[in-house]
Amino acid sequence: MEIDLAQRRVRVEQVGNGKAWWEPFDHLLIATGAVPFCPDVPGADAQGIYGLNTLQSGIEVRRAVDQEKPKKAVIVGGGYIGLEMAEGLLRRGLDVSLIDMASQVMNTLDPDMGALVSEALRDAGVELYLEEPLKGFEVEGERVQAVVTDQRTLPADLVILGMGVRPNSALAADGDIPLGVKGAIKVNDRMQTEVEGVWAAGDCAESFHLVSRRPFYVALGTVANKQGRVAGINLGGGYATFPGVVGTAITKVCAVEVARTGLQEKEIQRLGLEYINARIEYRTRARYYPDTGPITVKLLAEKGSGRLLGGQVVGIEGAAKRIDAVAVALHAGLTVDKMINLDLGYAPPYSPVWDPLLIAARQAIKLV
Amino acid sequence: MEIDLAQRRVRVEQVGNGKAWWEPFDHLLIATGAVPFCPDVPGADAQGIYGLNTLQSGIEVRRAVDQEKPKKAVIVGGGYIGLEMAEGLLRRGLDVSLIDMASQVMNTLDPDMGALVSEALRDAGVELYLEEPLKGFEVEGERVQAVVTDQRTLPADLVILGMGVRPNSALAADGDIPLGVKGAIKVNDRMQTEVEGVWAAGDCAESFHLVSRRPFYVALGTVANKQGRVAGINLGGGYATFPGVVGTAITKVCAVEVARTGLQEKEIQRLGLEYINARIEYRTRARYYPDTGPITVKLLAEKGSGRLLGGQVVGIEGAAKRIDAVAVALHAGLTVDKMINLDLGYAPPYSPVWDPLLIAARQAIKLV
Repeated sequence: MEIDLAQRRVRVEQVGNGKAWWEPFDHLLIATGAVPFCPDVPGADAQGIYGLNTLQSGIEVRRAVDQEKPKKAVIVGGGYIGLEMAEGLLRRGLDVSLIDMASQVMNTLDPDMGALVSEALRDAGVELYLEEPLKGFEVEGERVQAVVTDQRTLPADLVILGMGVRPNSALAADGDIPLGVKGAIKVNDRMQTEVEGVWAAGDCAESFHLVSRRPFYVALGTVANKQGRVAGINLGGGYATFPGVVGTAITKVCAVEVARTGLQEKEIQRLGLEYINARIEYRTRARYYPDTGPITVKLLAEKGSGRLLGGQVVGIEGAAKRIDAVAVALHAGLTVDKMINLDLGYAPPYSPVWDPLLIAARQAIKLV
Repeated sequence: MEIDLAQRRVRVEQVGNGKAWWEPFDHLLIATGAVPFCPDVPGADAQGIYGLNTLQSGIEVRRAVDQEKPKKAVIVGGGYIGLEMAEGLLRRGLDVSLIDMASQVMNTLDPDMGALVSEALRDAGVELYLEEPLKGFEVEGERVQAVVTDQRTLPADLVILGMGVRPNSALAADGDIPLGVKGAIKVNDRMQTEVEGVWAAGDCAESFHLVSRRPFYVALGTVANKQGRVAGINLGGGYATFPGVVGTAITKVCAVEVARTGLQEKEIQRLGLEYINARIEYRTRARYYPDTGPITVKLLAEKGSGRLLGGQVVGIEGAAKRIDAVAVALHAGLTVDKMINLDLGYAPPYSPVWDPLLIAARQAIKLV
């Protein structure tokens, strides 16, 4: 593929039969998605090592588990994909190890909250090796035998790479379409690039962070879908804008639910803001109700003004989707002072009388 | 009890020993709660008929079920208490009938959403008799034998009254403290009554509805707790306000979760506003995820402006607490146009890529 802006045409190559031609355009939408980070280490192309970024790659991993009956799996990377694969492989009966070069899994959480996720992983039976960069793979024949970190060699029948993604923006960059944050294609709220008639949406394109008020890159299906809708309306002659995101993400690791939205501490520090950290531990349901269990809620707010800056939740069933209320509060620019009076739903199967979010807000107003 | 405002004192009677005296006050907090509606029909004081408004009354019902082994229960009233008791008694193996004089259960839902709850009750095995006012009870000896409506006689070993509550404000009214909406004690945002130094909080006091912008009465533990906190801070010499409620309430009937917030259609009509009704049916989780199931979301918004006015949710597990995001949107005065871009959490165990709330918002913007 190639974009020729001067003549407003795109070089199209048909997969499989070698046919290629120049296709003229009035409007061009670039929706090339993201590409996974692949480690540049010895043995990375061995058999038995799987990325997980397409439906096909998922099908291949399942086939490998079904047919090759691997016993030991090593996961490289403790993000959403790594954690979800850890759960999946545990359920299939494999021994699962996970390595991450960072000092915690889920680096979109603050360390104190990430530690709760690490604990949950260990409780579920995952061997966790943190602060251990990947050095390479031991390979025999063409098959992976082990994962090598700077500290150990972990035998592996199956390796999953979950090292994150970056925007697939090479086509745009080669065609002189300006890139923005983290190499994502620079777009405005209508999903227009800086070149007239050229649009971009999805994991290849920038977003705007409504809390930091800065351009932001996030590769998530929700955001890609919203951007696609807006780009489609505009390309069709309509008018729509995508104002941006607040950075919401949720996941599940075995019995533990994990959610985050807004800015985390290191992002707030980078912006030079002063902030307070209100973290509370409570219960998901009324004390006497069956299956009530622990939930930890953390709210971050601007010192002085009390403006909500972010929230993180780790807990058992019923914990994660609570983040939606925090996300809406961020969209609305609420202060924690306003949050303590939010009329959230209470009934014993769902919540204590004071929802954990409200308890965290009450803690927060003491600190701002 | 008696309040003497002229001399700023309260007549206190000690329960059990007949002692009584006048207690002077500088500040007085009235927190007398609510009293259940009791039907003024023949036989209403028979044995085997239980209200359910105190912890003690709950203990008595459980003891009756444990010891008297009733087979047939009839519940009078299809509100929260009636529905929750229906579930509880079904689980204890009783045959359960429920009568309500209205044409639907859960009259805080619009009829189309209430119908889903009626269906869930019938599916769970409850015999439902709607539009059948209670006429009385058949009594033998001192024990209830049957519940009589205008259309039938239902044999009953156990009767539960769930006909709602009204503010317990007689003490205040007799003491010349002004009442407001539905006979609740009139208070300002600090929980001050119209009499200097006299405060009220909880189920005996008024609230303010932030969507209708009118005084409002609701007897719910969440609201009572928030009011109590605010009254306590002010009585202690501090300063706090309770701005009001948006009318959130949730409940659970067997496998079905029910939630509502904001104004329902009849309330909007009473305010003379024009509105749109966006109701969608979708799934609680990703299509391919285990235990995904139906959820119906209804959003009501002002015609023209698009201002959100209310929301209702009925669905399986994971449905109800979604109302919190709608409640926060109401607190913030969001329009449905803004709601379509809310950054709500998505992961397959929790939601489709477009959360049902967002799908409803997309429907709503087509109609406003």
